[in-house]
Amino acid sequence: MANEAGALCISSTNLAEFIGVNSCQIRKDFSYFGYLGIRGSGYNIEKLIKKIKSILKITVVQKAALVGVGNLGSAILSFPGFAVYGFNIAAAFDVSPQKIGKKINNVKIENISKLWILKRKKVNLAILAVPSEAAQSTTEKLVKAGVKGILNFSSCYLSVPKKVKVITTDIAMELARLPYYIPAG
Amino acid sequence: MANEAGALCISSTNLAEFIGVNSCQIRKDFSYFGYLGIRGSGYNIEKLIKKIKSILKITVVQKAALVGVGNLGSAILSFPGFAVYGFNIAAAFDVSPQKIGKKINNVKIENISKLWILKRKKVNLAILAVPSEAAQSTTEKLVKAGVKGILNFSSCYLSVPKKVKVITTDIAMELARLPYYIPAG
Repeated sequence: MANEAGALCISSTNLAEFIGVNSCQIRKDFSYFGYLGIRGSGYNIEKLIKKIKSILKITVVQKAALVGVGNLGSAILSFPGFAVYGFNIAAAFDVSPQKIGKKINNVKIENISKLWILKRKKVNLAILAVPSEAAQSTTEKLVKAGVKGILNFSSCYLSVPKKVKVITTDIAMELARLPYYIPAG
Repeated sequence: MANEAGALCISSTNLAEFIGVNSCQIRKDFSYFGYLGIRGSGYNIEKLIKKIKSILKITVVQKAALVGVGNLGSAILSFPGFAVYGFNIAAAFDVSPQKIGKKINNVKIENISKLWILKRKKVNLAILAVPSEAAQSTTEKLVKAGVKGILNFSSCYLSVPKKVKVITTDIAMELARLPYYIPAG
């Protein structure tokens, strides 16, 4: 199998250019994986992807639920990129009667009162795209439904039991990082 | 000025609990800023916010442009969180005739062919929410219009001159980080 551009191997120099780090760093990092390239030809792309996926535990398809189908939630549901990382948005939930029952990208929007079905469906990841004021209460319902990992877009702090992992993505904070790198004037 | 909860000071222990790190780490990090708390009462919240904002260069209101007003772009335009970090979405652009001329959150959507007006408006930050296939060509137009920092939601690599900083936010990759922390089974 070749990558999108048809290459079988990639050198640390090319990888380094692509992501903007030093090629020594690439070689050093990959050597920690016990994955060493071949001098002169670089890393076998297929093997490298397999190795990284296994380290990141994304070798099997994971089911995730989306909670909150507003503008952001709709964007997430329509987003083609999840399959690349082995994700399948298996369920979506909202409070709005106008949205419940509709389908986006083949996923039917369910009433948020039915979050408990996640336990039966064995979905243990959730994407939280509800308004801030509903974030904590929704999180508690997700935890009750057996969710173990939450990707939080609400930009507020979520209090969860220790066994649950929350990753918070604050779009405004990402934007706020930019001026730091830009010379004044 | 007190914070939202009415407190004037916060201890490193409280801060540590809030963000899930060790309180020693907090004290160590803040000491690098030359900002030391008072034993027994902690850090003055107002001063701390001021200090962090000045380090991050977000003490003045920064103007940013949004390019691509699809589901994600609409979510970004409606998002109240930018003001907290001193951002003002000063312009929005799209290709769709159905969108051009409309207003979201008081921002009028302009024709994407008018990106050059960013130079005149002195907007040097942009949020890129266009489909992947349009990301590189739009980026080149933004750079020509004087944009120095790009928050890229297209999940593809953007080639830019060295003076331009790109931060790429890949929602699927954020989700992909979760299983790593979750015990199997």
